[in-house]
Amino acid sequence: MTDATPFPLNAWYAAAWGHEVRHELASRTVCSRDMVLYRRGDGQVAALEDACWHRLLPLSLGWLDGDQVVCGYHGLVFNAAGRCTHMPAQKTINPSACVRAFPVVERHRLVWVWPGDPARADPDRVPDFHWNDGTDWVGEGGTYYGLKCDYRLVIDNLMDLTHETYVHAGSIGHEAITDSPFDVTHTDKTATMARWMLNIEPPPFWAKQLDKPGPVDRWQIIRFEAPSVVVGDVGVAPVGTGAREGDRSQGVNGCFLAAITPETEKTCHYFWNFVRTFRTHDARLTRDIQLAHVNDGKGLYDQDATVLQAQQRAIDRHPRMPFYNLNIDAGALWARRLIDRMVASEAKRAPQPPSAAAE
Amino acid sequence: MTDATPFPLNAWYAAAWGHEVRHELASRTVCSRDMVLYRRGDGQVAALEDACWHRLLPLSLGWLDGDQVVCGYHGLVFNAAGRCTHMPAQKTINPSACVRAFPVVERHRLVWVWPGDPARADPDRVPDFHWNDGTDWVGEGGTYYGLKCDYRLVIDNLMDLTHETYVHAGSIGHEAITDSPFDVTHTDKTATMARWMLNIEPPPFWAKQLDKPGPVDRWQIIRFEAPSVVVGDVGVAPVGTGAREGDRSQGVNGCFLAAITPETEKTCHYFWNFVRTFRTHDARLTRDIQLAHVNDGKGLYDQDATVLQAQQRAIDRHPRMPFYNLNIDAGALWARRLIDRMVASEAKRAPQPPSAAAE
Amino acid sequence: MTDATPFPLNAWYAAAWGHEVRHELASRTVCSRDMVLYRRGDGQVAALEDACWHRLLPLSLGWLDGDQVVCGYHGLVFNAAGRCTHMPAQKTINPSACVRAFPVVERHRLVWVWPGDPARADPDRVPDFHWNDGTDWVGEGGTYYGLKCDYRLVIDNLMDLTHETYVHAGSIGHEAITDSPFDVTHTDKTATMARWMLNIEPPPFWAKQLDKPGPVDRWQIIRFEAPSVVVGDVGVAPVGTGAREGDRSQGVNGCFLAAITPETEKTCHYFWNFVRTFRTHDARLTRDIQLAHVNDGKGLYDQDATVLQAQQRAIDRHPRMPFYNLNIDAGALWARRLIDRMVASEAKRAPQPPSAAAE
Repeated sequence: MTDATPFPLNAWYAAAWGHEVRHELASRTVCSRDMVLYRRGDGQVAALEDACWHRLLPLSLGWLDGDQVVCGYHGLVFNAAGRCTHMPAQKTINPSACVRAFPVVERHRLVWVWPGDPARADPDRVPDFHWNDGTDWVGEGGTYYGLKCDYRLVIDNLMDLTHETYVHAGSIGHEAITDSPFDVTHTDKTATMARWMLNIEPPPFWAKQLDKPGPVDRWQIIRFEAPSVVVGDVGVAPVGTGAREGDRSQGVNGCFLAAITPETEKTCHYFWNFVRTFRTHDARLTRDIQLAHVNDGKGLYDQDATVLQAQQRAIDRHPRMPFYNLNIDAGALWARRLIDRMVASEAKRAPQPPSAAAE
Repeated sequence: MTDATPFPLNAWYAAAWGHEVRHELASRTVCSRDMVLYRRGDGQVAALEDACWHRLLPLSLGWLDGDQVVCGYHGLVFNAAGRCTHMPAQKTINPSACVRAFPVVERHRLVWVWPGDPARADPDRVPDFHWNDGTDWVGEGGTYYGLKCDYRLVIDNLMDLTHETYVHAGSIGHEAITDSPFDVTHTDKTATMARWMLNIEPPPFWAKQLDKPGPVDRWQIIRFEAPSVVVGDVGVAPVGTGAREGDRSQGVNGCFLAAITPETEKTCHYFWNFVRTFRTHDARLTRDIQLAHVNDGKGLYDQDATVLQAQQRAIDRHPRMPFYNLNIDAGALWARRLIDRMVASEAKRAPQPPSAAAE
Repeated sequence: MTDATPFPLNAWYAAAWGHEVRHELASRTVCSRDMVLYRRGDGQVAALEDACWHRLLPLSLGWLDGDQVVCGYHGLVFNAAGRCTHMPAQKTINPSACVRAFPVVERHRLVWVWPGDPARADPDRVPDFHWNDGTDWVGEGGTYYGLKCDYRLVIDNLMDLTHETYVHAGSIGHEAITDSPFDVTHTDKTATMARWMLNIEPPPFWAKQLDKPGPVDRWQIIRFEAPSVVVGDVGVAPVGTGAREGDRSQGVNGCFLAAITPETEKTCHYFWNFVRTFRTHDARLTRDIQLAHVNDGKGLYDQDATVLQAQQRAIDRHPRMPFYNLNIDAGALWARRLIDRMVASEAKRAPQPPSAAAE
């Protein structure tokens, strides 16, 4: 399995924020598939293979004619289903002339694409990301396009928040994170890591949001949904107000949302948001929290990005060295196991390497 | 044949404009052969292997002593035939000490080199490029050194001008190009694509040159000479003035000239010119036409360069994907067939891969 | 042997100037081993593998806690012996959790590391570099970190000073160098090239230092100590004052010192100095001589760096081409032979490629 591709193809992956896709051509690579994205006149998003059938020029260098894509080299035209509808200087069109059309669903403010077998693309399998809908939970996120690391390193990072103590000392890091026990549970599609830190001093970020004196109970309930989404239910409440038992009304609650899409085997697109249920009308707080995460290299996620890219470079330099694991890696290990199962299941279905044309 | 080198070695390739080669050392790579070029005292151009026999330092980092090249590291001296004539601290010179000398011919304002077997370098086989002599036809061109694409992609581009409709819309592009029939003919060394567009509105560039009202007959007669020269006889004349029958006296006639030299398997030097027989004394027109072709990214050929380099990147990313062909590719396919024959014929002569030393 | 690593591992290599290593983390690669260097509280220098046992993050991205290194990702702590002393959220520490600790000796103003088997790291085998101690001989040097060439090309360069005539014409170059005979001798660990140029005009640099009219006797006695140190005893004295017989009191004497450390197979760190016994209290002369060697691309060694890096690029482009040798290469050939013997001897001891974990 070591040489297998590190991602399953039969899955929905976030490819863009909905507001980014307009009636114009944009290129995006997902799971090593080059795609051209655009919004059709009826509002639906189309995703075609970004290489002309004829001579491979990226279609994203061409232009739209209505809902059809015109190649910028010789003017071949492809409709939103990928079928060629015009060839220069020919009346008959080769019926096999087409480019791949990838299934697309727009949901939870993101555009999701399915790089694998279109026949298996079930919209019901889009990951649960409802916290991002902009209704009950409020927040504005962003994207690291082309982050230079294997997407699984981001998942490792999010599934074990002990790193906050070291990478994010001074904001959300706290010794209590490493001192507190945690539970890991899983299903066929999800792995969940839950940690309760009872009766602790809140770290600076949370103390400011709660704005009440005294110690708190803090929680981190991180849920991975295979292959590439992580949702972290996090917050603090004054000690003994019943948060652990289910009453968070005295506390403050946020969710970090991560959809991590493999671009290639060693790069990824990291769509993130941090949403909350407190002070939801405070636009300045929304902006402050956004900047706390990503801010020209100075935000929390910028610190992670530095670490993750350095880790990838180290892996590239030590290709044979195994990873060693600690107890804290239990959540990440389950996440990787679920990914590995998906990849293995695809390998079983397709024991022969598919020909290039079949792609 | 798929892994074969994409260029024949036993051929003349343009390496520089004559006016560029002075009595000083200049490096140039042709067909993956590193060369150092310089003009000797008698006016002849010499081309030597650009790597000292002793320790491989590029000779182009050294200097000239008369017509001999002094290596900049230990002072070995090589004459214009490539023979070592001086070694430091030795009286006897190893008779095998030499670097390759490449046959050179200066003709049609260009310096042509022969990277293959010197014994077969027949000056009569220099491609016919007399339009570039600066006598009957007038124009000033230029070079893209190190264009990042396989030289054959440039040939494909020039042998099928339907791309003008899409890549050069607004200047020389015209729907009539894709609508008009064309003929392809060939000999052992050449392939010719001829297209007549009768009774059409001239595109902006030609309307301006002709400066007469009314529809025109337009022609494009593109001739490839293997392995790397393309000459395009193009122009317009008022409808019915006999251009197709041979009388172009009422029209305007130009020739685009292209000598496309492989630098490596994926890069090339593209020597171009556009010459004309009309208003030949108008230096401002000469300059305007030159700028119309190459102008800091905004010229016609700059548009082609963008497309060609994007196409090469796409090929690199889809190594197993075949090209599909359209009717319009007939001229390019013949050009490639003639190249393939030359390459195959060389492979036959040299069934054993030559040793490095033998090069 | 052609594919063997070009450097022995069981040897002391200069990794830094002593004054550069402070109580803070610094990364350095020696013989393809990534190391993190720091000075402990007791003044000793420690060198650990620069990749955390857990997830490979470079330890140099973390911080010091006393004399221990804290990983910047999950807070694992390693002592100066490389043993893990703290793991997050665990009371028991995996006893196998450690990173490599490399033997270190600080001597002759340099920090030397031993990338091979620690059990064989004998401090008595640190190369003799006493000229660099700053006592009898005075001078200030510098380092080219990450020079883009195989370290053996630098040794070739220093073992044959005929290149001065060509690379350094105008300063220390002189026709006499190539005209004069030389002797090469060797031991199991050293190769020495000695050249006397009797009764010559001194080249500009030496004429200025000597500051006496008339011809001189000039000497160059270059001694290589395997695998990576070169010391060159150089100078001039007025003709017939007995320099060759051992009395240099009428002349001026300098030593160039070079410790050339492989960084990777194709890059190296070049620690250099030029020390002298004349006008030792003249700080301005010290500075002038330093600038004469390295000065923003204009110094003597900058000229060498240009040649050496061009040579490496040429080697990369002509992988199968052998080097040819001249008589002048006798010293360099002996140096390479001694290196080859060390490498071969290591290959014999370890006939099996070591596993990654064993490293």
